[in-house]
Amino acid sequence: MSSALLDALRKGNRLALSRILSQVENGTEAGKAALEELFLETGNAHKIGITGPPGSGKSTLVNALARELRRREPSKKVAIIAVDPSSPFTGGAVLGDRVRMLDLEVDKQIFIRSMASRGALGGLAEQTEALSQVFDAAGYDFVLIETVGAGQSEVDVVNLAHTTIVVDTPGTGDDIQSIKAGILEIADVLVVNKADRPGVDQSVTHLRNMIEMGYARSINNGKHHLQDFSENTVDEPAPAGWIPPILKTIACQYQGIEELTDAVLTHAAYLRESGQWHAKDKAAIQANIRRQLIAGLLSDFNQKAPGEMIDSLIEQAQNRTISPNEAVRVLLTYNRNNSLESSE
Amino acid sequence: MSSALLDALRKGNRLALSRILSQVENGTEAGKAALEELFLETGNAHKIGITGPPGSGKSTLVNALARELRRREPSKKVAIIAVDPSSPFTGGAVLGDRVRMLDLEVDKQIFIRSMASRGALGGLAEQTEALSQVFDAAGYDFVLIETVGAGQSEVDVVNLAHTTIVVDTPGTGDDIQSIKAGILEIADVLVVNKADRPGVDQSVTHLRNMIEMGYARSINNGKHHLQDFSENTVDEPAPAGWIPPILKTIACQYQGIEELTDAVLTHAAYLRESGQWHAKDKAAIQANIRRQLIAGLLSDFNQKAPGEMIDSLIEQAQNRTISPNEAVRVLLTYNRNNSLESSE
Repeated sequence: MSSALLDALRKGNRLALSRILSQVENGTEAGKAALEELFLETGNAHKIGITGPPGSGKSTLVNALARELRRREPSKKVAIIAVDPSSPFTGGAVLGDRVRMLDLEVDKQIFIRSMASRGALGGLAEQTEALSQVFDAAGYDFVLIETVGAGQSEVDVVNLAHTTIVVDTPGTGDDIQSIKAGILEIADVLVVNKADRPGVDQSVTHLRNMIEMGYARSINNGKHHLQDFSENTVDEPAPAGWIPPILKTIACQYQGIEELTDAVLTHAAYLRESGQWHAKDKAAIQANIRRQLIAGLLSDFNQKAPGEMIDSLIEQAQNRTISPNEAVRVLLTYNRNNSLESSE
Repeated sequence: MSSALLDALRKGNRLALSRILSQVENGTEAGKAALEELFLETGNAHKIGITGPPGSGKSTLVNALARELRRREPSKKVAIIAVDPSSPFTGGAVLGDRVRMLDLEVDKQIFIRSMASRGALGGLAEQTEALSQVFDAAGYDFVLIETVGAGQSEVDVVNLAHTTIVVDTPGTGDDIQSIKAGILEIADVLVVNKADRPGVDQSVTHLRNMIEMGYARSINNGKHHLQDFSENTVDEPAPAGWIPPILKTIACQYQGIEELTDAVLTHAAYLRESGQWHAKDKAAIQANIRRQLIAGLLSDFNQKAPGEMIDSLIEQAQNRTISPNEAVRVLLTYNRNNSLESSE
């Protein structure tokens, strides 16, 4: 990574930003080096995740939110990451989003990036976090992360955000109740978009009931991040003071966008005052370290353990002469009794 | 774990089976010991995953498939695991399934188990695999694993199956095309259920086009399992010889169930002849070993590394004085230079 390219990014050069984003997304050595250096300049951006089922008008809503943030805070910059994890193998289809976003591109303080998963199953959240850090270091004050659907990978992606907006539409029927229940738990702000459609009030009532039944983030926040990295890690404290507001919007007519922006900014203030902002940042760093630590421990292990031993243990387990547990005990004992140096 | 309980399970005692399933699901020491012992008796069951969007009639289809398998092979036993990961915190609502399944319970060669995720995010596939192994060891020839939705956790769950059935309904609209594309890739058998509804032929044509466009498992099989465990691990070879059939069913009228059963049994024969059965079994064992190895390496690491060091590194990263990468380098160096014994 040439420091000239990083300096250009720091000075607001969009081409440099674009090139570094590509390097980071592709996981090149230059990208990794850039990310490590840029990390030291992160920590300012407000990351906002937006998710909801296909057809709920997320892209239009994200566009409107970006516009309103820019209108209110003209000195601040907005980045949009459009994540489409629908197809891990084909790379997804984000052309529709691109077209819808074109009208924003005239504002040079808004930067839009589309991202597909490129087959890195399970790595989408990691990749999104990396791109967010680049935008953060490049001085973008708001990073909007738009993802489709309500599966685990979407939860992982929006979970790295400070504020999560869950978008729904009126009267989508009881077929998708189960999806709603799962996704509600990560919502800080709920939006019923396309609020000129019939059934909007029932949808709002339904969502309010779900929240009152305890499905919302305020009850269960922060259980995702760390499990067994060490006893020293901490979970996010539950933000008992925040009850997700439920807003009605008609994004294509720019209706309700001011209220949505208010809610987003209020949530940011709440996070900072309550210590949640700090806790979320810490949890993200812990998760990052844990992920890299696992990769490093496995890499060290693989350098030590003879391939024949691993092959043989797998074969014995497949023949049902030993259990996988026994295979792991053998591998761990070998790992403990051999240092990296002496095996070389 | 008393060997009496395990012996009772081996003799077909349903109460013993139920108790061991609970112990395994709850992760008790007795459950872990039972699972390790029972693993040596696994490897016979045909695991069949069934997934699709809510409202597609999966439960009815699973019931019908279980009945038909029993009718055709009266000497064989069928287990059903109903996974509801919709709500990681509330435990999900599987009562509906339970009611629908009650009519099967009179057949004592069919065993039904409902499972919610109990907050073990990311561990659902592991838990499902464990229950499958108990059923396998208990002499169940078919294990039907029913899961809702099309997110990553569902993909993980059905990915452990030998045969994956993806269920859809006619004319669910273009809103969910993105979900279909993602889930099609894991399908071995495609079912358009509720085939008495309008639009069934369009749905079949659409699915056929998607398959011809290369979205199906035959092109992309087996990329999920292992990534960096070691250079010695192998991916499943691509089963280029299998093209997912597309079947029409009306499960509530038992229509198309014979053809579905034919397809499932044909797929099992195909897997055995092509070597895929063996490869899938090996991949599952590798993934199991890798998962336990990571847990063990982390545990060893945590016993060695002083908590103050970890805390300090996290704090420095949060203050942006070092990167997470640098923190990991320090931790890995410490881990390499200190053996478990000498630190005690």
